[in-house]
Amino acid sequence: MSNYISSTICALATAPGIGAIAVIRLSGEEAISICNQVFKGANLLEVASHTIHFGTVRDDNNKIIDEVLVSVFKGKKSFTGENSVEISTHGSPYIQQKVIQLLLQHGAKSAGPGEFTLRAFLNGKLDLSQAEAVADVIAANSDTSHELAMSQMRGGFSNEIQKLREQLIHFASLIELELDFGEEDVEFADRDDLKELVEKLQAALIILIKSFDYGNVIKSGVPVAIIGEPNVGKSTLLNTLLNEDKAIVSDIAGTTRDAIEDEMIINGISFRFIDTAGIRETTDTIETIGIEKTFEKIGEASIVLLLVDAASISKEQLITDIASIEAKIANQNKRLIIVANKIDQAEATAKQKFEGLENVIFISAKEKNNVSAIEDKLFDYVNSGALQNNDVVVTNVRHFEALTRANESLSKVLEGLAINITGDFLAMDIRQALHFLGEITGEITTDDLLDNIFSKFCIGK
Amino acid sequence: MSNYISSTICALATAPGIGAIAVIRLSGEEAISICNQVFKGANLLEVASHTIHFGTVRDDNNKIIDEVLVSVFKGKKSFTGENSVEISTHGSPYIQQKVIQLLLQHGAKSAGPGEFTLRAFLNGKLDLSQAEAVADVIAANSDTSHELAMSQMRGGFSNEIQKLREQLIHFASLIELELDFGEEDVEFADRDDLKELVEKLQAALIILIKSFDYGNVIKSGVPVAIIGEPNVGKSTLLNTLLNEDKAIVSDIAGTTRDAIEDEMIINGISFRFIDTAGIRETTDTIETIGIEKTFEKIGEASIVLLLVDAASISKEQLITDIASIEAKIANQNKRLIIVANKIDQAEATAKQKFEGLENVIFISAKEKNNVSAIEDKLFDYVNSGALQNNDVVVTNVRHFEALTRANESLSKVLEGLAINITGDFLAMDIRQALHFLGEITGEITTDDLLDNIFSKFCIGK
Repeated sequence: MSNYISSTICALATAPGIGAIAVIRLSGEEAISICNQVFKGANLLEVASHTIHFGTVRDDNNKIIDEVLVSVFKGKKSFTGENSVEISTHGSPYIQQKVIQLLLQHGAKSAGPGEFTLRAFLNGKLDLSQAEAVADVIAANSDTSHELAMSQMRGGFSNEIQKLREQLIHFASLIELELDFGEEDVEFADRDDLKELVEKLQAALIILIKSFDYGNVIKSGVPVAIIGEPNVGKSTLLNTLLNEDKAIVSDIAGTTRDAIEDEMIINGISFRFIDTAGIRETTDTIETIGIEKTFEKIGEASIVLLLVDAASISKEQLITDIASIEAKIANQNKRLIIVANKIDQAEATAKQKFEGLENVIFISAKEKNNVSAIEDKLFDYVNSGALQNNDVVVTNVRHFEALTRANESLSKVLEGLAINITGDFLAMDIRQALHFLGEITGEITTDDLLDNIFSKFCIGK
Repeated sequence: MSNYISSTICALATAPGIGAIAVIRLSGEEAISICNQVFKGANLLEVASHTIHFGTVRDDNNKIIDEVLVSVFKGKKSFTGENSVEISTHGSPYIQQKVIQLLLQHGAKSAGPGEFTLRAFLNGKLDLSQAEAVADVIAANSDTSHELAMSQMRGGFSNEIQKLREQLIHFASLIELELDFGEEDVEFADRDDLKELVEKLQAALIILIKSFDYGNVIKSGVPVAIIGEPNVGKSTLLNTLLNEDKAIVSDIAGTTRDAIEDEMIINGISFRFIDTAGIRETTDTIETIGIEKTFEKIGEASIVLLLVDAASISKEQLITDIASIEAKIANQNKRLIIVANKIDQAEATAKQKFEGLENVIFISAKEKNNVSAIEDKLFDYVNSGALQNNDVVVTNVRHFEALTRANESLSKVLEGLAINITGDFLAMDIRQALHFLGEITGEITTDDLLDNIFSKFCIGK
């Protein structure tokens, strides 16, 4: 890996554009000495780690580019685990560019995406799953997704994997020992103990694997499909839901919340309305897509919200619609929420019509009447039942796949034990399981794997 | 002014949006103690100034909002001249907002635009013209505008004003002394010396006042109007000029240069093509605006670029056009550049046609032939002659107005001296001149003036 960390890298670390200040980051053996060449103030080679120094950045003609504060981090104690400098400049894109240009001229190279975090990993400051969580922390935009990413970055998930792995390593070493004495037909590793351990590990792995359903929707937002006949009020409902969310978002001077279109946050959980282009583009009157067509939307949704017109739908039609949707989503871990709209126009007859049907929410989207009941229902779906109750939650598809493969390898170990397979075959499957677990935390890596992970980071991180 | 600085303010200091890191800034008596309440790590009350501390920001339920680096600046040694803290968080808008919310809950208040710089001024760290230059430094997007703003921020202009003011104060005090001895008809201030000084000061003021022509165009870009009949190739020329500039701009990973539409930078000086909407929207073939109409554009331009079709224009027409534009811009300190386009179609006849006309540039915009000659001409205009040759350049319209008024007051002093006016009237005019000079550096301020200046700053600065 040493080719990764032989150079000194630099990049803008703060968001691009104009701010009061901007921070340019350098990391690598030469970080402090390169900065010292362009900085006039204290001699940075002689200052203590974690100290801040006022001075000027000057170009090679001694022209002042900016007045800056330079923060110096020495060796192991920095984020990356190597000499690092942060230059805090005035926040103009002109100055940002000039300072970076100057650093490049003096021997730094432009950092690739995630290269600072990659170095933190290579220098042993973070394991791989923690490093991956750094990007998740930055991307998180709800309480829950933030909390999961933060817990993972601080090593919660890694510790869990590490515990499982260590127990298996103990057995693996005993079996490897048997192989060394291959001719003598000894058994250092008790087969019953091994079976018990593997079953215990599998139980733990399966909890983690199952948590991915929850972790994945928390990370990327719970996908919700709003379906219904033309004219039932889908666009009005969508706007009411989204605007209520936006009204809650507080505006703090100097920050912007990058609100994602068609996303709302309820009690810290993000819900993402999928495929709303059709809903948004049309007013209901010119919609032409029937309920059959909207089945296409259901595919990627976790929650299907069927909206009907309480005033005009017949009871028979309603029952048919519900039955056809339920057939469609059977065994798919999706939930159906039925919402009867326009209750303001038809309260008495509507309630009669829906008698005997459970879990119908009566609203008037236009009058903003009872819309909050939908939000409560959406939140309940995530907050209750099968999806939750895990301390450690898997949010990363790479981890999910590695856990699934580790689990499959452990199943092979159990199969082997059942037919009294020889130690060398058992050892192979155990090594496979260890390999997949090791991939998660980065004990096992390849350059391709690292490139793939860190290329998804932003530059400067 | 103490109402300005009784509280502790906080704001996001880096550009809004997602970055690797973001910096939240606190300033005020309680800055360190407020941060200490939400920070778990070192006790910030006990650390040295200009040191950096790793730890976590936690909400009141001890939930971790982020892992952060906190930089502590104590008292007079900070940018604002009061206790300050910079919290370097992961760069997600979610975290930025949460941390600021938490600080507000613990007693900080949201900073207004420019409030950090205002405090630096009120605490005597910068004078007013330096403080104003901070915003100019952040907004500067060319070498020259950056250099002027940086020089002003570092006190170049202030020193010049200060020198002028001190000489005048000396005389003012002598005259005030005369007034104290009013009955005795003494003259402590020699009138000839005063006249000589005032004339010297006026000469210096006039140089500064004149420099504003240059300073203003440098700061906001030299306004250039491209005019010409339909079909002469104005849009092609504009695109060629702008694209050449964009191609020169280097792309450094992690930075963006906020290129302003219709602006190009030549040798560090920004040129702004004005009122190009008509040019951009039309292809030349459907243009319908004749040369008479384009006179409207000339008003705000410093440079008028007349583009003609070398192939089709008659010599008579050309001479008429030039004469009418020259009449239009007479005595207005504008310059006319004549460009003959489509030379590729009519090289031989064209050159003959333009014989005897000076300063015609022959180009083919389509073939990108000789377009750089236009750039050279534009640059020469700014770089040569009357507009330059000042070490200190006035870029701020407020300063320009104050200098103009100070100069007027000094003229009154001279008039008074000419008619042997009494000391009390002289003193009044001198005090007026001192007042206007003092407004520039902030010896004289009002709350309205400060509000007006700092409201144009960005928040967090």
